[in-house]
Amino acid sequence: MTESNKPRLEVCLSPALLHLYDVKSSIVVIIDVLRATSTICTALANGATKIIPVATVEECVNIGRQLEAITAGERDGKIAEGLKHGNSPFEYSRDFIEGKVMVLTTTNGTKLLHMAKDAVQIVTGSFPNISAVCDYLVAQKQNVILGCAAWKDRVNLEDTLFAGAVVSRIREHFDVSCDSAIAAETMYEASKGDLFEAMKNATHFKRLSNFGLEADIRYCLTADGANVLPVLRNGELVLG
Amino acid sequence: MTESNKPRLEVCLSPALLHLYDVKSSIVVIIDVLRATSTICTALANGATKIIPVATVEECVNIGRQLEAITAGERDGKIAEGLKHGNSPFEYSRDFIEGKVMVLTTTNGTKLLHMAKDAVQIVTGSFPNISAVCDYLVAQKQNVILGCAAWKDRVNLEDTLFAGAVVSRIREHFDVSCDSAIAAETMYEASKGDLFEAMKNATHFKRLSNFGLEADIRYCLTADGANVLPVLRNGELVLG
Repeated sequence: MTESNKPRLEVCLSPALLHLYDVKSSIVVIIDVLRATSTICTALANGATKIIPVATVEECVNIGRQLEAITAGERDGKIAEGLKHGNSPFEYSRDFIEGKVMVLTTTNGTKLLHMAKDAVQIVTGSFPNISAVCDYLVAQKQNVILGCAAWKDRVNLEDTLFAGAVVSRIREHFDVSCDSAIAAETMYEASKGDLFEAMKNATHFKRLSNFGLEADIRYCLTADGANVLPVLRNGELVLG
Repeated sequence: MTESNKPRLEVCLSPALLHLYDVKSSIVVIIDVLRATSTICTALANGATKIIPVATVEECVNIGRQLEAITAGERDGKIAEGLKHGNSPFEYSRDFIEGKVMVLTTTNGTKLLHMAKDAVQIVTGSFPNISAVCDYLVAQKQNVILGCAAWKDRVNLEDTLFAGAVVSRIREHFDVSCDSAIAAETMYEASKGDLFEAMKNATHFKRLSNFGLEADIRYCLTADGANVLPVLRNGELVLG
């Protein structure tokens, strides 16, 4: 019954549960599907030199000014006051972002990223870079925590679905003795035929679609549109 | 899109997330499928006069002595040292429990029950009393939190599946704007054809089946074997 020769693959459904996991011995994948981590891989795939995740809007403004960088981020799904750009992946075309530094703050994703700072390695995951994430995790042969950013600590559907998609793809390489991972995988398997349809009941879908962002949501649920691996090095997200 | 004329139905997947919910304005259903809440309805259905849930083994022993009551409970899935009985529903046949008081402490369920003390009403739910729980919730027309006891704060499959079963049965009477509720329902719908089979990968299944308790698990996943409603009154669980 034990598969002790394989590393562990676990899913943490909310930052408020992260203390229950052994972060220090694991690679942590930060998951904030709508939309921070989808935007992060998109910006890097389109040539951003690096992305600096910060906790507050104030830091974002200050660091942005010092570095003459793009300041981006949202609070409650909208561009945060004082910042120039939001966290829609469509804002970060190659024309716009290539060769530039981006400073990013979001409601949930950047918070979790800072909480996981003691991990062996932090990377970010989303459907647009799912293959890059899975290839990396399989190659490392280390314990993995798929960390859902959630919504103000409440479990959300989109991050859970992505975690489940990763479990579904790579479970044979890992010991999956984590009910959250099994639950996420079951959710994904039940929904993968039409993720967009499955998302229509999600609270964040309603929040975003109220702002007219359905194209964002479709992009953020589609595999491999920006298939690169963002890794955290010295507090900055760069291509892995 | 709003259904504000209906009360809210939400699912809390772990006690560590309960602070995110408005307990004071809600009925809370305590869910500890394997095995505390399955055993609670079974003991009451078989004639126990009341069940006193306590946090510690010491309290259990002391109150049991004062009241000449049955002391029951487990730690980590086994009968706790110093107690006479475990929390297998099969220990509480009518012959044994009728007319008696039971003092109960468990790893997870009794903890959540005490955390939810400010709720409008606390009841306990499990597959053996799912119909009684659903009928009650529909009749009350109040906000509901389905509170999973989980396993030492980690989300578990069996409590999530039960919460999903309740959502599936009564969602038309409620406003379900809670991703955890939608996730639990999706899980249940994907697994309901054979809950026992679905549970075979669960961490707690392995924990219990190591102790030879598969008959317990089958009973605890079967609807309406002890279809009564335990409600908390003055700190005691009695028939509703």
